[in-house]
Amino acid sequence: MKKHNFSAGPSILPQEVFEKAAQAVINFNNTNLSILEISHRSKDFVAVMEEAQNLALELLNLTNKGYKALFLQGGASMEFLRIPFNLMKENGKATYLDTGTWAGNAIKQAKPFGETVVVASSKESNYNFIPKEYTIPTDADYFHCTSNNTIFGTQMKEFPETQVPIVCDMSSDIFSRTLDFSKFSLIYAGAQKNMGPAGTTLVVVKEDILEKTNRTIPDMLNYSQHIAKESMYNTPPVFAVYTSLLTMQWIKNKGGVTAVEKLNEEKAALLYAEIDRNPLFKGVANKDDRSLMNVTFVLNNPEHQEAFDSLWKNNQISGLNGHRSVGGYRASIYNAMPIESVQVLVDCMKELENKI
Amino acid sequence: MKKHNFSAGPSILPQEVFEKAAQAVINFNNTNLSILEISHRSKDFVAVMEEAQNLALELLNLTNKGYKALFLQGGASMEFLRIPFNLMKENGKATYLDTGTWAGNAIKQAKPFGETVVVASSKESNYNFIPKEYTIPTDADYFHCTSNNTIFGTQMKEFPETQVPIVCDMSSDIFSRTLDFSKFSLIYAGAQKNMGPAGTTLVVVKEDILEKTNRTIPDMLNYSQHIAKESMYNTPPVFAVYTSLLTMQWIKNKGGVTAVEKLNEEKAALLYAEIDRNPLFKGVANKDDRSLMNVTFVLNNPEHQEAFDSLWKNNQISGLNGHRSVGGYRASIYNAMPIESVQVLVDCMKELENKI
Repeated sequence: MKKHNFSAGPSILPQEVFEKAAQAVINFNNTNLSILEISHRSKDFVAVMEEAQNLALELLNLTNKGYKALFLQGGASMEFLRIPFNLMKENGKATYLDTGTWAGNAIKQAKPFGETVVVASSKESNYNFIPKEYTIPTDADYFHCTSNNTIFGTQMKEFPETQVPIVCDMSSDIFSRTLDFSKFSLIYAGAQKNMGPAGTTLVVVKEDILEKTNRTIPDMLNYSQHIAKESMYNTPPVFAVYTSLLTMQWIKNKGGVTAVEKLNEEKAALLYAEIDRNPLFKGVANKDDRSLMNVTFVLNNPEHQEAFDSLWKNNQISGLNGHRSVGGYRASIYNAMPIESVQVLVDCMKELENKI
Repeated sequence: MKKHNFSAGPSILPQEVFEKAAQAVINFNNTNLSILEISHRSKDFVAVMEEAQNLALELLNLTNKGYKALFLQGGASMEFLRIPFNLMKENGKATYLDTGTWAGNAIKQAKPFGETVVVASSKESNYNFIPKEYTIPTDADYFHCTSNNTIFGTQMKEFPETQVPIVCDMSSDIFSRTLDFSKFSLIYAGAQKNMGPAGTTLVVVKEDILEKTNRTIPDMLNYSQHIAKESMYNTPPVFAVYTSLLTMQWIKNKGGVTAVEKLNEEKAALLYAEIDRNPLFKGVANKDDRSLMNVTFVLNNPEHQEAFDSLWKNNQISGLNGHRSVGGYRASIYNAMPIESVQVLVDCMKELENKI
């Protein structure tokens, strides 16, 4: 019996994606070869890579707007390094919004490259809100933010108006909502939350922000090199890219990001309504900043933990434990999570209330 | 009907590995979850990572000898960068043996870090042999070589005796033959040839060679960081690591590297014997340096190409075309290639001779 998987990442993908990916491991595109054994230079895989790049831009409404899509390796953490290497000038300045553990890690990786200014931080309150009052110095090389904070359950609803290029880590809410993505100069996302399996990172970069530093950038860290080689500077992570493509096709077939966003809003509304209604629970994140993807909540009385844990586990729910730095519970309700699974969780919360 | 896949990489894996990997995409370890949606911190996956690390050391006979095994991302090309970052001292010296395209690329990536000495090169003869007469300066921080040259079909049979730490790219012959692996201080291999799907790189490093430079090494490029976090500095490429583990288990069940090596020698002997016997063909690599993994050969008369290509394609052979920098044919006969498939190729070569 299939589980209701609320894991934060790697995380749920559509069932049909699992089925098609498994089929490709046995026989890809009726080639009588496994997707794992075909050359990345084969006609069949080159077509996969091209479609994945094109579809990523299409879903973000960025086709023909000067952007390139890349599928790289190393996770968002490798982009924490590539970003200052490619964008921070020698003796330049980078600005960061500190909204969580991963934002903090991005800041740490940038510091050796030059002046790294944290324009605002919610660290003092364990990142339970998104700072909104801050100024971005106009001489900054870029402004970096994290659109959704997986661990803390907060999400940026507004982005600053600035002439400084905006770089955004969208690892945990890529393709989950509509935004004017052309406001961003660089968007990146580890695949393993809303897009695919662990092992590839989508980078969408506006070409005109590149080649402006005088740094010597190692080839593997150089976005321009990866663009020149169309994500094939060396062997790409074939299976992760293919499975990401399957997920993007699923999103497109659902009606695109607009349609998926509507479902995400319904799922989040259902769960937050129960958290706010049920006297046994309370939400962790500031209400205005609540994430549509990662819903963090705690029991008001820790003594109810054992009873609640039994309830959800007996109902085939998995992956609900909160991150150690927040505690309590975290329900990650990514694109592929059906509202029926959210209802199962809500029913467990109601049942706990009835039992107590 | 399954193909005989002679691709150079990504390349053939054992059929049972494909089947188990596909099963895990649907339902991993009877968890009722896909391997693609489980947390990398879950008990089940932590066990996979630990077993993969231990088994890599076991197959190389390096258990309890001061080595650590890591599964990283970025392919061998990322190690071309990590190696000088971690091993070349400030104002230090690195030495490289130039035996092919990938060796050349490793050299290029090291140059910005300091004095990079090429001790010998076979570039002038299009890398058709392995240089053997050279001196490694005793003050070098390390000596880098490529054990098997996938593109050119050459393989190192002997390694230098030196006090300088030996770093070796074994991407295309890892787990294919027995060597005294304790002579090497660092061994690395992109998975997608003899070990697994594209998307992870095995790095086996002797801990005592690390932490000797004064460089500031970015976390993601720092071997010590990855060792401290047991290959989980950030989300690892879960599926690629799992599938690599399945392949290593298959090798172990076959009788380990010793048993696999014997089969590899038989397969290579069968094919090279036909190349040497059949008057229509000739080998590309110097006989003493012939690779057991990648067999490069050409037709003596290019006019026979069309007939030969029809023959092997009609016999369900794929991936036999040579790399553009060598031309002709390349039969990659990695661990998972059955001798029966090599026989099919040999039969095609004989049939061409009979037809002409």
